[in-house]
Amino acid sequence: MDDEHQRTRRPGGRSARVGAAVHQAVSDLVGERGYSGFTVSEVAARAGVADTTVYRRWGSLEALLADVTLTRLNAQSPMPDTGSLAGDLHTYAAQVARVITGPDGLAVLRLAVALSGTGPDDLRTRDDFLADRARQLQSMLDRAADRGEQPPDALTVVDHVMAPMYIRVLFGAGPLTAEYVAGLVDRLLSNPARPSGA
Amino acid sequence: MDDEHQRTRRPGGRSARVGAAVHQAVSDLVGERGYSGFTVSEVAARAGVADTTVYRRWGSLEALLADVTLTRLNAQSPMPDTGSLAGDLHTYAAQVARVITGPDGLAVLRLAVALSGTGPDDLRTRDDFLADRARQLQSMLDRAADRGEQPPDALTVVDHVMAPMYIRVLFGAGPLTAEYVAGLVDRLLSNPARPSGA
Repeated sequence: MDDEHQRTRRPGGRSARVGAAVHQAVSDLVGERGYSGFTVSEVAARAGVADTTVYRRWGSLEALLADVTLTRLNAQSPMPDTGSLAGDLHTYAAQVARVITGPDGLAVLRLAVALSGTGPDDLRTRDDFLADRARQLQSMLDRAADRGEQPPDALTVVDHVMAPMYIRVLFGAGPLTAEYVAGLVDRLLSNPARPSGA
Repeated sequence: MDDEHQRTRRPGGRSARVGAAVHQAVSDLVGERGYSGFTVSEVAARAGVADTTVYRRWGSLEALLADVTLTRLNAQSPMPDTGSLAGDLHTYAAQVARVITGPDGLAVLRLAVALSGTGPDDLRTRDDFLADRARQLQSMLDRAADRGEQPPDALTVVDHVMAPMYIRVLFGAGPLTAEYVAGLVDRLLSNPARPSGA
């Protein structure tokens, strides 16, 4: 680890290359075989790294899959900035609905909830992702407050807009129509306050 | 199938005995080894039936696990009948919170969302369970309407009381405090109407 090659590496050097190669290998294998059709060894071989490199960095195949899919999910759904709270929430809710009902949506949601937490980093990936999204959502709500609007807090958005959509998809309970998604946001906007104690 | 033994079987005969033996075997194995520590063959051996009997009736280990756990879940949380909508909803929400944060709660929720739908009956068990619960919930809401109260519809209860609790447990996002759970019900009762189009 402290030989000359390591000491002279550039920022974004070997570690970033390994990350990119492993992510690409996973994406390719998911595309070819689906989410449960390959092993850590196959990912490592295709990425040109040792199995132990993958285990050391991600802890398990589940955690690696979660990292890859959540990274992609994040890239697919940036937080909107439309100039109004209603516009932002409607746009964001519609975007989440599109992603989770898309071709990989159910698989990604299942991965996120299936992480067992038995490996050292199993849950870190998911929790980092969730914390990241919570911060982005909070920024959106802070912008609304700065404009003099009365935004709900981030957990209330998650509870009453995201959670109903996630649960419908996870339990296969009916489609997320545009009317249904908009209705969740309208309902929240009509009562943005969080009940005391919640 | 049409020999004398079969023709003279009583209602609740061999089929019910097989069901009970298999359920018991699964419960025992879950208790001894957790949810992912055994195979269909081990269940069948312990229940004294052929592997094919289990596959024919349940389709997969996942579907069998879901059947056993959802049957138990149903038995653990009967619908309340307290005489008021608020009382029923507060009691029901607290009961669900207790079950899903209990020792098997997360495992049961994960099982319910992990069913792959690839086997012939994989999803039937879960969907039967969900339909059953929806009917029970509807009866509770119908009783409220009969008393002259203004109940929300069942899907709105699921979206705004059950879904937030399920998602918090599934994503490991904080405890379900009594105040939080009661707050979800209070919020719903303050706005029981479903937005148009939802």
